[in-house]
Amino acid sequence: MRVTRSKITTNFSEWYDWVLSEAEIVDYGRYPVKGMGVWMPYGFKIREKVLNILRTLLNNSGHEEILFPLLVPEDLIRKESKHIEGFQGEVFWVTKGGNDELDVKLALRPTSEVAITYMESLWIKGYTQLPRKFYQVVSVFRYETKATRPLLRVREISTFKEAHTIHETFEDADRQVKEAVSIYQQFFDSIGIPYLISIRPEWDKFAGAIYTVAFDTVFPDGKVVQIGTVHHLGQNFTKAFDMKVQRANGTLDYPHQTSYGISDRAIASIIAIHGDDHGAVLPPAVAPISVIVVPIPSKEDNEKVLEYARKVLEQLSSSGIAARLDAAEKMTPGEKYYYWELRGVPIRIEIGRRELLKNTIVMKRRDTLEATEVKLPDLIDAVKSLLNQIDKDLKEASWSRMKSMVRIVHTMGEVKTELESKMGIVEVPWCGNDACGLKMEEESGARVLGRPYHDQEVTGRCAVCGSTAKTILRIAKTY
Amino acid sequence: MRVTRSKITTNFSEWYDWVLSEAEIVDYGRYPVKGMGVWMPYGFKIREKVLNILRTLLNNSGHEEILFPLLVPEDLIRKESKHIEGFQGEVFWVTKGGNDELDVKLALRPTSEVAITYMESLWIKGYTQLPRKFYQVVSVFRYETKATRPLLRVREISTFKEAHTIHETFEDADRQVKEAVSIYQQFFDSIGIPYLISIRPEWDKFAGAIYTVAFDTVFPDGKVVQIGTVHHLGQNFTKAFDMKVQRANGTLDYPHQTSYGISDRAIASIIAIHGDDHGAVLPPAVAPISVIVVPIPSKEDNEKVLEYARKVLEQLSSSGIAARLDAAEKMTPGEKYYYWELRGVPIRIEIGRRELLKNTIVMKRRDTLEATEVKLPDLIDAVKSLLNQIDKDLKEASWSRMKSMVRIVHTMGEVKTELESKMGIVEVPWCGNDACGLKMEEESGARVLGRPYHDQEVTGRCAVCGSTAKTILRIAKTY
Repeated sequence: MRVTRSKITTNFSEWYDWVLSEAEIVDYGRYPVKGMGVWMPYGFKIREKVLNILRTLLNNSGHEEILFPLLVPEDLIRKESKHIEGFQGEVFWVTKGGNDELDVKLALRPTSEVAITYMESLWIKGYTQLPRKFYQVVSVFRYETKATRPLLRVREISTFKEAHTIHETFEDADRQVKEAVSIYQQFFDSIGIPYLISIRPEWDKFAGAIYTVAFDTVFPDGKVVQIGTVHHLGQNFTKAFDMKVQRANGTLDYPHQTSYGISDRAIASIIAIHGDDHGAVLPPAVAPISVIVVPIPSKEDNEKVLEYARKVLEQLSSSGIAARLDAAEKMTPGEKYYYWELRGVPIRIEIGRRELLKNTIVMKRRDTLEATEVKLPDLIDAVKSLLNQIDKDLKEASWSRMKSMVRIVHTMGEVKTELESKMGIVEVPWCGNDACGLKMEEESGARVLGRPYHDQEVTGRCAVCGSTAKTILRIAKTY
Repeated sequence: MRVTRSKITTNFSEWYDWVLSEAEIVDYGRYPVKGMGVWMPYGFKIREKVLNILRTLLNNSGHEEILFPLLVPEDLIRKESKHIEGFQGEVFWVTKGGNDELDVKLALRPTSEVAITYMESLWIKGYTQLPRKFYQVVSVFRYETKATRPLLRVREISTFKEAHTIHETFEDADRQVKEAVSIYQQFFDSIGIPYLISIRPEWDKFAGAIYTVAFDTVFPDGKVVQIGTVHHLGQNFTKAFDMKVQRANGTLDYPHQTSYGISDRAIASIIAIHGDDHGAVLPPAVAPISVIVVPIPSKEDNEKVLEYARKVLEQLSSSGIAARLDAAEKMTPGEKYYYWELRGVPIRIEIGRRELLKNTIVMKRRDTLEATEVKLPDLIDAVKSLLNQIDKDLKEASWSRMKSMVRIVHTMGEVKTELESKMGIVEVPWCGNDACGLKMEEESGARVLGRPYHDQEVTGRCAVCGSTAKTILRIAKTY
């Protein structure tokens, strides 16, 4: 039994702002630049945990972390024409240094394909140096004109993990796309975030890409959020920089690239998708604190209860479990429960006189608030196994909620009524022609997410033209 | 016996650029924006190690990591008048978003006192919330007009650890300055960088500070580099933001602040101060690889030698030692020695047929290139003890070199000739009057670093006015 999620589903927006601010994850909206917020200490720790998972996956698959400058000169960013077309409306420009007007305007990087390709053209001369897989974790900037939302639509994306790889052949780059998709699956699985993987339609791929694979998830309000993208860039950027390298067969040719990114939205998803009316519910893998120990004051034996609580803390800590004792005297146990539930700590251990006398503890899981009594000698095993259980249950619950929001329909009428009544994602048979896809987008007033990345059987006829369907298109209202 | 350091001392500048680029630490000067460079994978790993030491020291002393936006609106940055006076010549300004001129210019943060004080004024209402100690690791920007040097004088300081603390009283902030100084001492000690701690003269303190404590070190060319600063900000910024909080005695008052920073220069110091003619020499604490295992090809027993080398690697790795086997077939052992010495790996293990037959290994320390033969069963103990020895010896050697560059003189004539002939730092008796100090700066053509932070006995008379000296002033040519 989960804690109710009525506040989230009926007024997600308000709930979301409340959790981010009350749980001290980000302070957003009070910083005096629109679309930019402050990562607070607790939020920063969650962010670090999330990034560590991602870094480990990338490091273990041969990716090398680097760090590029923030600023990209205008002439560089204009090298790839489709790329700048896609981004130029939303670039922030530095035009002054001190009191000087700069000769060349400098962009705050909106993404780093051009800067990285330029340097690769200096570093890489031949196929023996390929492939190279780089990544960096940086801020990127978009001059958003739409309404901004913390961690979802911002002007400074302050957590942007962007990977950039370079390969001898198109096929190598294609394999890299598959590796990236698999890494992102492992990443989202480890934080319990459900996803659909789609190949974005031609008209909505990354500016400068051959094709784009995207991860989408469904938020509690039924809106869809893009949480990760993987792009096959082909030779578009290497050609723009006239970067040729020697191939194994002795000829010179432009190498092929991919790029892929994960942003703040991964953290937004953890908060939004696992949360409930009491606040955040953190998967154990990203919780800065796994167990909070709360002593219940006792008139007779207060000091002994505290001592017992300290002993429990000590046992947890020495077993490598991130535990904390909340012995603050000015707060009641009830206030402490509220405080730590809001912050999503996976397990609470309550210790009062009753537990002291029985040599037990009460263990309460955050996701269901179920309590279990545990004998002290079983403490570590019980906590470890409950953390695993919570991890598993959060993932199952979130996947099952998402699946209930994805359904197949067959006509454009159904697309519209389904999206209006229940939001989520509708899948509709499609002939494969862009013209029909664009019409679906137009008629639904929603966004075409694309066709499934993994083949999916389809029967029926294109909802627009009526010819035999080749695949499906996914349509949703998106953030 | 150290490897010779003739290249470093006779032409430091060339040597420094060569190591940074050849050892693939940073690629600087080729990125198409002046004063900005790329952290390469190997350099990035050193940077991570250095930052982890710093983060651990800060986290263990109650500092909380946060992350602020990059951009600071002009009106905010103008709030503290001395502060903006100090920085306005070197601020980069964002004036355009997409095709729009922005209503308010946005500064790329040159440092974060104003932004943080502004948010603290929203977060902190009373003394029970004090002290708070925040820090962040970010890029800061200075529109340098002087010649830039990688990691030393740059326009994007891409590794800036800035701490910001806030306290109820002046004395609390004073104690915090002492804590910060002690943390920085531990930090520099752990990377073997020698330092002098000085209180900067009035005319050279941080823009907006009551006083500034600085760490300086001496580079191989005899020039001095400021590697860390700690500022007591008093109420200057809280007054500028009219931020009053409730004190324990019930009154309302402006809280007191400190800020302190460490930058890329810490990493520059590691490279410059420990290096030798073969390249970088990394202290074990920051070396991404502690031990490189190089097999020596053997006609008779090549496969067995390789197998033996793999066994050695396995033993090292399973003991938690960061080791790597360089089994590349296209490079000779000599080329591998050159490659890994350049990168400063503390220990090289050479394994050939001779070692295979004797069940030994040859262990070569990077700093002295001394070789020791070790029996295989003693491998782990020998490596661990040698890593400790290298750590100790590097620190001793660098401290002793620095001390030889610091000397007391008594007249302005001596100041000039000493600085001209041998560079380094001269200490000269001083009466304590700023007028005399400024005259010293003027006459020496060098920079006054300030007086010792820790009291130092002084005899003699002020080198300018001849009255009884109260303390000494340190003078040096600086980067």
